[in-house]
Amino acid sequence: MSYILENADRPNPITNPNRRRLLAGSTAAMAAAGLAGFTRSAMAQAVADTAIAAKPLPAYVNWKNPESMIVHTASTLETKRSAFGTSIVTPTSQLYIRNNLPAPDASVVADRDGWQVVIEGVKNPRTLSVKDLKSMGLETMAMVLQCSGNGRGLFPNKPSGTPWQVGAAGCVVWSGVPVRVLTEALGGIIDGMQYMTGTGGEKLPEGLDPKSVIVERSVPAKAMADAMLAWEMNGEPIPLAHGGPLRLIVPGYTGVNNIKYIKRLAFTAAQTDAAIQKTGYRISPPGQKGDPSHPSVWEMSPKSWINSPAPETGAVSAGRAQIKGVAFGGLNAVKSVEVSVDGGKTWKTARLVGPDLGRYAWRQFVLPVKLEPGTHTIACVVTDSRGNRQPEGRVENTGGYNNNSWRDHALTITVV
Amino acid sequence: MSYILENADRPNPITNPNRRRLLAGSTAAMAAAGLAGFTRSAMAQAVADTAIAAKPLPAYVNWKNPESMIVHTASTLETKRSAFGTSIVTPTSQLYIRNNLPAPDASVVADRDGWQVVIEGVKNPRTLSVKDLKSMGLETMAMVLQCSGNGRGLFPNKPSGTPWQVGAAGCVVWSGVPVRVLTEALGGIIDGMQYMTGTGGEKLPEGLDPKSVIVERSVPAKAMADAMLAWEMNGEPIPLAHGGPLRLIVPGYTGVNNIKYIKRLAFTAAQTDAAIQKTGYRISPPGQKGDPSHPSVWEMSPKSWINSPAPETGAVSAGRAQIKGVAFGGLNAVKSVEVSVDGGKTWKTARLVGPDLGRYAWRQFVLPVKLEPGTHTIACVVTDSRGNRQPEGRVENTGGYNNNSWRDHALTITVV
Repeated sequence: MSYILENADRPNPITNPNRRRLLAGSTAAMAAAGLAGFTRSAMAQAVADTAIAAKPLPAYVNWKNPESMIVHTASTLETKRSAFGTSIVTPTSQLYIRNNLPAPDASVVADRDGWQVVIEGVKNPRTLSVKDLKSMGLETMAMVLQCSGNGRGLFPNKPSGTPWQVGAAGCVVWSGVPVRVLTEALGGIIDGMQYMTGTGGEKLPEGLDPKSVIVERSVPAKAMADAMLAWEMNGEPIPLAHGGPLRLIVPGYTGVNNIKYIKRLAFTAAQTDAAIQKTGYRISPPGQKGDPSHPSVWEMSPKSWINSPAPETGAVSAGRAQIKGVAFGGLNAVKSVEVSVDGGKTWKTARLVGPDLGRYAWRQFVLPVKLEPGTHTIACVVTDSRGNRQPEGRVENTGGYNNNSWRDHALTITVV
Repeated sequence: MSYILENADRPNPITNPNRRRLLAGSTAAMAAAGLAGFTRSAMAQAVADTAIAAKPLPAYVNWKNPESMIVHTASTLETKRSAFGTSIVTPTSQLYIRNNLPAPDASVVADRDGWQVVIEGVKNPRTLSVKDLKSMGLETMAMVLQCSGNGRGLFPNKPSGTPWQVGAAGCVVWSGVPVRVLTEALGGIIDGMQYMTGTGGEKLPEGLDPKSVIVERSVPAKAMADAMLAWEMNGEPIPLAHGGPLRLIVPGYTGVNNIKYIKRLAFTAAQTDAAIQKTGYRISPPGQKGDPSHPSVWEMSPKSWINSPAPETGAVSAGRAQIKGVAFGGLNAVKSVEVSVDGGKTWKTARLVGPDLGRYAWRQFVLPVKLEPGTHTIACVVTDSRGNRQPEGRVENTGGYNNNSWRDHALTITVV
């Protein structure tokens, strides 16, 4: 009862010739994409997304699923809203990419166990290989990885930087050794060290002041509690594009604080004076450049968004529907999610769906509704386990960081 | 601070020319694979595995990760023990394949929402499309999917059939509509229906009695409680090779009961008389053919195995190490896992690692040990929430089904 199987249903990113390459602004393209039922702004966005999606995948991530990604630039790729699905964990093939510097040469993943990291600011500083780390302990944790600028594209004043919608985020399972296991093994942290500082192993561009380009970030030392040095994500060794062989994972903190190719983990008395920390990734008032007096982009705040119905998946039919999305608390677990189908006038509590992967993961929610023909603005808002509620408005800032406004994330759909 | 990235670290299954094609029995090949530290039988198995792995991926699953798969035949692919990692969920690119018939034509996944399933044995029978199902409800569930014959290769008498070791299994996240939501919507199950019978939508080979080849399985109707009709796995629409557009998921039941391309779901008074049910997948005494008097291969039993250290990952260094593996209860949650490094003479309780994805998922376990030079037999045993303990021995049967013997699954390693 065993036969040769001959069908294939997955596009190969290299060889598949059928990827859609729709033209921006084309009515035919909109019709082809099934966008007839959407309002003008949703249509415009969907068409813009489609146009962006038509850029080919960069070679170093040609293993991503082209149908699920929006390619902004070679170093910034976003997951399409419709690609998030309802399986909680975001497949690596669909996870966003945002790299501040080119990855090291691929030779560093030819001998993953040989990669070394220097541990400083502990009583017995040491250089450890990944092989050493793997013998010291193991933890597995699901965590929302989210770019600091996710939602920047929803700021009306269009801050400079990648105009991410919701797809510069994913829920990822990491495996590695807890940082606290390391520090205990090395005699503990030296007194007075207020920060945990990670340094990335990227090759720095020549001719520039290293401090101006190096990826080196400091977070409060307390963030160490659940942090890990990770070698695996989503069941595979961490791909080079995502920071392998070794990445610092700081759960609850935005993407940039999760240092790729980590070569040094130091407990330090002060924050690093690298530009990416000193002036970059600061919540600075509009029009002002970042400086150390402005809050650093560290912890994530409660946030949720709707993935379905989504503009890019076409017209919405009247009748019974399931409104679906994701919600997370940043540092705290999700307590509840409310959904509105009337632009925030009235709210109903959604059902949380699927296993709970822990406080740093996102939860899926669903609300069954009956949609009447017409135009509706659907929105969602999450409340975390400490009672923090996702705000209606955004905090304006030059960099367009940390947008968790539920109103900015509302979707206007036309039901036919 | 944005640069073009140029590195790639993932082999493309189509274009990567560097896949290892080691020759069976070659000492040089064993050395190249880092097998020097293993005992003869482990070596022989690892070399055999390596030889098998050298078969190319069949075209319909050319998107699988070739480094992680053992290709037995075009319709039977196994995950390498070392590829399981520690992320709980098995990536689809590394999940085993076992298909009883060729998949339908790929055209069926061109319009996934249009796929239809007939629901019978309910008071108001109906034909529903996937689009209909998606509007009716949503559940997400993690479940161990395991071929009925996983572990057959560990039977000493070598039953006929694919000689799976441990890799015809994975932990998969499914999304779909619960069967109980469907039956409630259709007026409930007709009285007296003892079985839930699913029929696969494969095209049947011509010239054969359809009953002799059709994939149609009956399970006790009580299995409906947590069953679902699923359209998504691991964050993506179910690939054709894994049963998309629609698959019946019966958690806790072996793979064959999870009907791919399901076109009919019927509540029936009797089991189907299809050969795959009537005589196939029966626990028949050695030497006897299956018949309806023998137990059907339905529920999975408690089982665990060690993934690391594994023969295929090379010599084991003396000193501190983490023994890692997976454990599941079948129908019940995992309560505890014990590990032995002396062939079962003494046991230590392992730590369960990572989030708990529910009673049908597997748990990872880890036990830190200090390995002395020499030969050691490492083993593990799981106990479920009802106190059922994985047995030492196997139940001998013609088909080589349901091997959950902890002794058969023990690994002998040489530490240097």
